[in-house]
Amino acid sequence: MTNSIEIITDALKKVLKDDQVTVNTTVRELHGRDESYHAQQLPDIVVFPESTQDVSNIMIVSKSHQIPVIPFGLGSSLEGHVIPLKGGITIDFSLMNQILEVKENDFLVTVQPGVTRTQLNQRLKKHGLFFSVDPGADATLGGMAATNASGTTSVKYGVMRDQVRDLEVVMADGTIIHTGNLAAKSASGYHLNGLFVGSEGTLGCFTELTLLVHGIPEHITAARASFPTVNDAVEAVVSILQAGIPIARVELVDEPSMKQTNIYSETNYIEKPTLFLEFHGNEAGLKSDVDFTTMIVADHHCEGIEFETDNAGRNRLWEARHNLAYAFIHGYPGKKMMVTDVCLPISELAGAVEYAREIVHELGLIGGIVGHVGDGNFHVLLMMDMSDSEERAKADDLNERIVLYALERGGTCTGEHGVGIGKQKYQEREHGAALLVMEKIKKALDPDNLLNPNKIVKLD
Amino acid sequence: MTNSIEIITDALKKVLKDDQVTVNTTVRELHGRDESYHAQQLPDIVVFPESTQDVSNIMIVSKSHQIPVIPFGLGSSLEGHVIPLKGGITIDFSLMNQILEVKENDFLVTVQPGVTRTQLNQRLKKHGLFFSVDPGADATLGGMAATNASGTTSVKYGVMRDQVRDLEVVMADGTIIHTGNLAAKSASGYHLNGLFVGSEGTLGCFTELTLLVHGIPEHITAARASFPTVNDAVEAVVSILQAGIPIARVELVDEPSMKQTNIYSETNYIEKPTLFLEFHGNEAGLKSDVDFTTMIVADHHCEGIEFETDNAGRNRLWEARHNLAYAFIHGYPGKKMMVTDVCLPISELAGAVEYAREIVHELGLIGGIVGHVGDGNFHVLLMMDMSDSEERAKADDLNERIVLYALERGGTCTGEHGVGIGKQKYQEREHGAALLVMEKIKKALDPDNLLNPNKIVKLD
Repeated sequence: MTNSIEIITDALKKVLKDDQVTVNTTVRELHGRDESYHAQQLPDIVVFPESTQDVSNIMIVSKSHQIPVIPFGLGSSLEGHVIPLKGGITIDFSLMNQILEVKENDFLVTVQPGVTRTQLNQRLKKHGLFFSVDPGADATLGGMAATNASGTTSVKYGVMRDQVRDLEVVMADGTIIHTGNLAAKSASGYHLNGLFVGSEGTLGCFTELTLLVHGIPEHITAARASFPTVNDAVEAVVSILQAGIPIARVELVDEPSMKQTNIYSETNYIEKPTLFLEFHGNEAGLKSDVDFTTMIVADHHCEGIEFETDNAGRNRLWEARHNLAYAFIHGYPGKKMMVTDVCLPISELAGAVEYAREIVHELGLIGGIVGHVGDGNFHVLLMMDMSDSEERAKADDLNERIVLYALERGGTCTGEHGVGIGKQKYQEREHGAALLVMEKIKKALDPDNLLNPNKIVKLD
Repeated sequence: MTNSIEIITDALKKVLKDDQVTVNTTVRELHGRDESYHAQQLPDIVVFPESTQDVSNIMIVSKSHQIPVIPFGLGSSLEGHVIPLKGGITIDFSLMNQILEVKENDFLVTVQPGVTRTQLNQRLKKHGLFFSVDPGADATLGGMAATNASGTTSVKYGVMRDQVRDLEVVMADGTIIHTGNLAAKSASGYHLNGLFVGSEGTLGCFTELTLLVHGIPEHITAARASFPTVNDAVEAVVSILQAGIPIARVELVDEPSMKQTNIYSETNYIEKPTLFLEFHGNEAGLKSDVDFTTMIVADHHCEGIEFETDNAGRNRLWEARHNLAYAFIHGYPGKKMMVTDVCLPISELAGAVEYAREIVHELGLIGGIVGHVGDGNFHVLLMMDMSDSEERAKADDLNERIVLYALERGGTCTGEHGVGIGKQKYQEREHGAALLVMEKIKKALDPDNLLNPNKIVKLD
């Protein structure tokens, strides 16, 4: 293998500059893990393309030497997506981080895959625009498209797939394609945009993305509403949605999570099951939505609702919410975080959250529950001692029971984190005969199984 | 061929009841055309399945006898999608027309493919819900999913693809799959929902659809705004969108179309380029949106805006808009309608409409322009004498020049009508190397090229 890696490295250096190719162990180690609990595995080579043509050349080397390639953004994935299960060449997109064009009048931007969402939002601000998908981590947009990321604002603005108007993709044989166009809608050809978004590097490498952006709303109000029980909070959300209130964010944070937030973010929020809410709109409409919501939460035993209308208060609130995972990690040094990620029809959500809480309690695990409850998506954040095999087994058991509960009720094993390594084993259970259709597509587009092999579909 | 058709008919009658299979010429003629100008071609056999299992059995007969199958809803397609280019078995879904379930709390319905959109909306009304996609024609939901239909409300609620949560699909080999689940979002597996929606019967037959529905808005206001020029009207729309007003419908109707509307619908609307608008929301927010819009249209030389707040006035307005195609057809007996259907980035729309008007004028053709201008999508409705080859050539020339104009500016050759027969020749130009990817997918899922062959991708 060492010998062949040398040959492949030489081949790569023929099409890239020397400093774009490395076998340095430290660099490989950095590319052998993500933010998940999954075990590290090292790529053989790491490359840093500067252009689409570089990526195409890398693919041709990969094909001719039959060595896997794994695209890598910032490594903030949560299910081991970027871990090279069979070694190979990791393609790090950090040098392809330019915002290529802002088409203000069309609400479109074109970016390279290494651009991060905060980098993009900083640039968009002066145009009165923002990019809506907000998974918490400052991920790259290429990575977010690869995993169909979503987050707190998806209940109003949709997930990553809804924002992608066009992708430039390098295919397994080095061919460069465009999956879409710049029009707001199209009925032409197969919907490749949708197919490639969420494909986790298994069908091609994204080298350019054209994304929909939105006007910064005229008025924004955020709120925190406390409830006696998680169930009351979840049922309040169902009522808000049924009332047709166009809520922009609605997040559930349970008591253990509120406690951890107060410690880490130095807030003094009430330590009860809480909804973090946000409303976007014109002044009059927003006031009406806020009043209606206040009435609805009162019907569900809300013990207090507090509003944040100025920028500083709103930012503090959402920062506290976003830092929640870090709050747990910080609070339990030496432990690793495992996050569950099911999504269910909204009518099944309250039962699912209740069920998850019971298991956490029954198994004596440490963790909190947070959720993008407007979408029916929730997470159990579990802090685990990775060396304690009993604790790991319990965490796996919890994850599995939560997944099976969701699948039995028309839900999905992953609402937003993706399949990666952790959810591979549930693909057959979730998709049934459709998994064979996915395998046929994979084989048709990557016949040698070189693109992030054994993610999503397992071919060997 | 006659002999083999007899054998195949016998094979079909072994798996279906006798009256579900016919070779009657009148029935075949009804299934040999749609609402487009494309030439009729007859299927050899027409079948009427009553269940998913029937469809699966039909597919197995199709495969074993290597005869094409073409799914058929109501024949309201506009580009010849249902015309059997190579003969074969047309599968008419009119007996599969049940609304199977309304999951009110989840905003979901499950229907069979033969259900029409007005049938569904009638049922949903009592739940305070509505199905948003409105292409004008009372198409079947199976057909609308097959063509990724859209229409007047897409600017707010999205296209057909955005409403599909799950499809039951019978594949070429008779296998039955589900493409999605009931959750609001998912990052699990490849996005088969998106791939199958808009696949025009070339990848599989839909036998059940689970669709997103919406709450009927608290308040609705419609309006008509007249402008001195089409350009003023289009630029007003761009400004409305840029102001972030969440407009629910915004339709352009030019002078010739307004004239035809007044004749056919017995209205007395001002015969000037007009925007038909609709706003949905809570009372206060809607009032604010309407006031802001009134200011914006005034800036673009609006010569008068009239509001319709009661049901009757609104219905009259949208009925007049929807009947526009029939108004032209009625006004020119003996002629056939050809409809162009490009969609462009909104910044290119005014130029595109202007360009199309110039060509219509230059070629001396009869027709009007209407458009879902909020999406950047517009149609030229042309009335043609099909026996006049010179007129046909002119119409083809117009269509092609409009398509090429759109493609050169990042647009698409079809915004909502689909590829069918009419837009097949532009697929390579629009998709480039991506068309090869589409061909690979088609070959992987339908290796014998039996599903609506030579639509979207042309394999022989």
